[in-house]
Amino acid sequence: MNYTVRSSSSDSVFLADFHHVSTIGATARNGVDRQAATAEDARTRDWMSAWVEKHGFDLRVDAIGNMFACLEFVADAPYVLIGSHLDSQPLGGRFDGAYGVLAALFAALRVKESVAESGQMPRFNLAVVNWFNEEGGRFAPSIMGSSVYAGLFDLDEMLAVNDLGGTTVAEALTDIGYAGIDTPPEAVSYAEIHIEQGRILERERKDVGVVESSWYTQKLDIDVLGEQSHTGATAMADRHDALVAAAKVVLAVANVVDEFDDEALVSSVGQHVVEPNSPIGVPRRVHMVADLRSSDPAVVRAARDSLKAQIADIALAHDITIEIEDFDIRDKRYFPEAGVELAEKAVANEGLSMRRLETMAGHDSVAMNHRVPAVMMFVPSVDGVSHCEREFTTDADMLRGLAVLTSVAHELIRGELSEERDVTIWVGRSVAEARMIAGAPTNAGMSA
Amino acid sequence: MNYTVRSSSSDSVFLADFHHVSTIGATARNGVDRQAATAEDARTRDWMSAWVEKHGFDLRVDAIGNMFACLEFVADAPYVLIGSHLDSQPLGGRFDGAYGVLAALFAALRVKESVAESGQMPRFNLAVVNWFNEEGGRFAPSIMGSSVYAGLFDLDEMLAVNDLGGTTVAEALTDIGYAGIDTPPEAVSYAEIHIEQGRILERERKDVGVVESSWYTQKLDIDVLGEQSHTGATAMADRHDALVAAAKVVLAVANVVDEFDDEALVSSVGQHVVEPNSPIGVPRRVHMVADLRSSDPAVVRAARDSLKAQIADIALAHDITIEIEDFDIRDKRYFPEAGVELAEKAVANEGLSMRRLETMAGHDSVAMNHRVPAVMMFVPSVDGVSHCEREFTTDADMLRGLAVLTSVAHELIRGELSEERDVTIWVGRSVAEARMIAGAPTNAGMSA
Repeated sequence: MNYTVRSSSSDSVFLADFHHVSTIGATARNGVDRQAATAEDARTRDWMSAWVEKHGFDLRVDAIGNMFACLEFVADAPYVLIGSHLDSQPLGGRFDGAYGVLAALFAALRVKESVAESGQMPRFNLAVVNWFNEEGGRFAPSIMGSSVYAGLFDLDEMLAVNDLGGTTVAEALTDIGYAGIDTPPEAVSYAEIHIEQGRILERERKDVGVVESSWYTQKLDIDVLGEQSHTGATAMADRHDALVAAAKVVLAVANVVDEFDDEALVSSVGQHVVEPNSPIGVPRRVHMVADLRSSDPAVVRAARDSLKAQIADIALAHDITIEIEDFDIRDKRYFPEAGVELAEKAVANEGLSMRRLETMAGHDSVAMNHRVPAVMMFVPSVDGVSHCEREFTTDADMLRGLAVLTSVAHELIRGELSEERDVTIWVGRSVAEARMIAGAPTNAGMSA
Repeated sequence: MNYTVRSSSSDSVFLADFHHVSTIGATARNGVDRQAATAEDARTRDWMSAWVEKHGFDLRVDAIGNMFACLEFVADAPYVLIGSHLDSQPLGGRFDGAYGVLAALFAALRVKESVAESGQMPRFNLAVVNWFNEEGGRFAPSIMGSSVYAGLFDLDEMLAVNDLGGTTVAEALTDIGYAGIDTPPEAVSYAEIHIEQGRILERERKDVGVVESSWYTQKLDIDVLGEQSHTGATAMADRHDALVAAAKVVLAVANVVDEFDDEALVSSVGQHVVEPNSPIGVPRRVHMVADLRSSDPAVVRAARDSLKAQIADIALAHDITIEIEDFDIRDKRYFPEAGVELAEKAVANEGLSMRRLETMAGHDSVAMNHRVPAVMMFVPSVDGVSHCEREFTTDADMLRGLAVLTSVAHELIRGELSEERDVTIWVGRSVAEARMIAGAPTNAGMSA
């Protein structure tokens, strides 16, 4: 690489800054709790605002609260965006998202220094982005900010989304001072680095994962409507207990994976709210969200159909109403083969090992890949755990990822990937078909 | 009866006032939502404060927020207390509790008028009480105010109880202006009228139920402790999903009734809180409260033991921790036979029909019966439903109950029941044993 490592962009400063950011909203067991547009999210954003001002970036905040730290090399040219998200799950890990934003800030600083030293003007400008509400723990759906930017979600609809306490996204962003009015930079390509959140890289001792495709995912909104009564005075035969029926639904969602090949499908109920939630009230309502994901869209659809039939039987057996709605359906998507190869080259140039992967989790890069060619890379997660306080990635792995992201950012501002054809035609096709469309060999290894 | 019905204590004014109070905190479907120490509870209390002031009662509020509207006939004599509670379940019914307080207010007013007319001084004074937090939907345990008064719960412990939002009872009472400093009146006996909340009176077409005993009840605090992870990225085999294990616990609690005779036991899980409750977070924790009740203490104990064994198996199968604690154990209690007979006589004098019953629900009268001899009466509930918006009792049934309560209050201030022996020795004994101790015949009909 041809950038000069100065003190402000050095590995040691990166690690110091990363571990400092981990103290914002820190929890007792080494995690963080920085849900979207909370006071803790605001403090992390304020840290980033101060950092980018200190290092000469131009900060823009758009209407959904996305933060863009811009470096303009060429007047009126579009931007390469690199970044991730600073928000976390409730009692989440300190690496998920924040690592990608910190790595992008330091990659951009290194690129800036390199451009200044070499005097060679790049073709595109560069901006680091902190996407609003990737996690979706407080405001559903997740991946909100990048999806609005990519045109997948409507801005006004998202601003009107409520949290469980009735606060809207618009109110929460205003409260923390990040309801922006700036026009976001126009993107030409996107790159992101993230922790894997699985254990494939660790198991195979690879330094970096390059993401070829994202899983097909959908959620089911399930509303179990019984009748409230008295836990003491109402005879068992007279009850229409929503929680008992809901318990059977939770088990059906967990067990539906057994209808398919091992690990072909993951399923769970994450959100589950009981009303009236009184120790002496037989529950009248349980509102839950089930999450179904598979590499193969047909598996998710078959699981959904099986669950709908099972849930209809549960409703009948309990003489109660259960309403089910599909939502947040995200097609299986392929990242551009040229981007995968660009990342592979960067990894090889750094002398590191890699493998191709799929991502089961959603990411801002998946939304951005709808709008511009995107590159998604992973660093290893210890034990494969994520969305919890014991999520962990080593300093050495973070530094390897930073080096690769810096290299990729260099290539992108020089114009790599900007001519890539629209990838939307790949959606929902088989891997082989997609490879043929992309002109790639069909025998490349796929992740499990 | 020898009181004169004046306009301010007439049946029509009672009904008008009852239906007015039903508008405070009214819900869309004819219920009310007046949880303890909320703004709606405060407005109902303010209504009562104004009413008792207008009618010449002396209001005292004690440290746990119980309101006593006192009529002093004889200086320094103790008080007969009559009353119930004005708070409700979340989306509760408008009769549960409020009927008993309104009936007590009008019964007391009629007694006051009668004493003034007759010039005959009673032996005891009379006070109407609105007990704090009978429902326990916001602050557990339920039956809080009367249990503190009766010496069953510690005042400071109860003031420190949190709701799910972290507000303490002390803070909530201060917020609504009902953290009182008055010494409560000293009780000599207690009477309460309440809706049945079951369907025995309706089925048998009886006007009034006289309560002989309360069911044995206990709660189980169950804490299911799994591990938070990602609903997408974490492999199914690597998950420790607290909600899936919790669903099995919910079903075990519901199904344990099948181990006993039909309707010998009622059981349910009313409170059930999932953490982190994020659509894309595998739940790390479910904290729930199970409620077990039976006329026979041995049945509850056997059900509890069966559940503990089943839950241990569930924890083992899921490789997670499930902690279980007994709490809020309430012994089976008998009301004094002399009080039951006093109520029966009052019903007969009014030309009404009655039957003896047990109560499956807890009531303030059950707590008060620990401290002084108590009389508990029921009026019919349409369809037997309660703790829900469609809870209903007819005006005619409410007026019949008011007449009986007035008659009972008259007898109590004249000294009836005040010599009754301590009933605490009856706790936990069999019905036959208790009857023998009380000197009652052992062949009296018991409720189902």
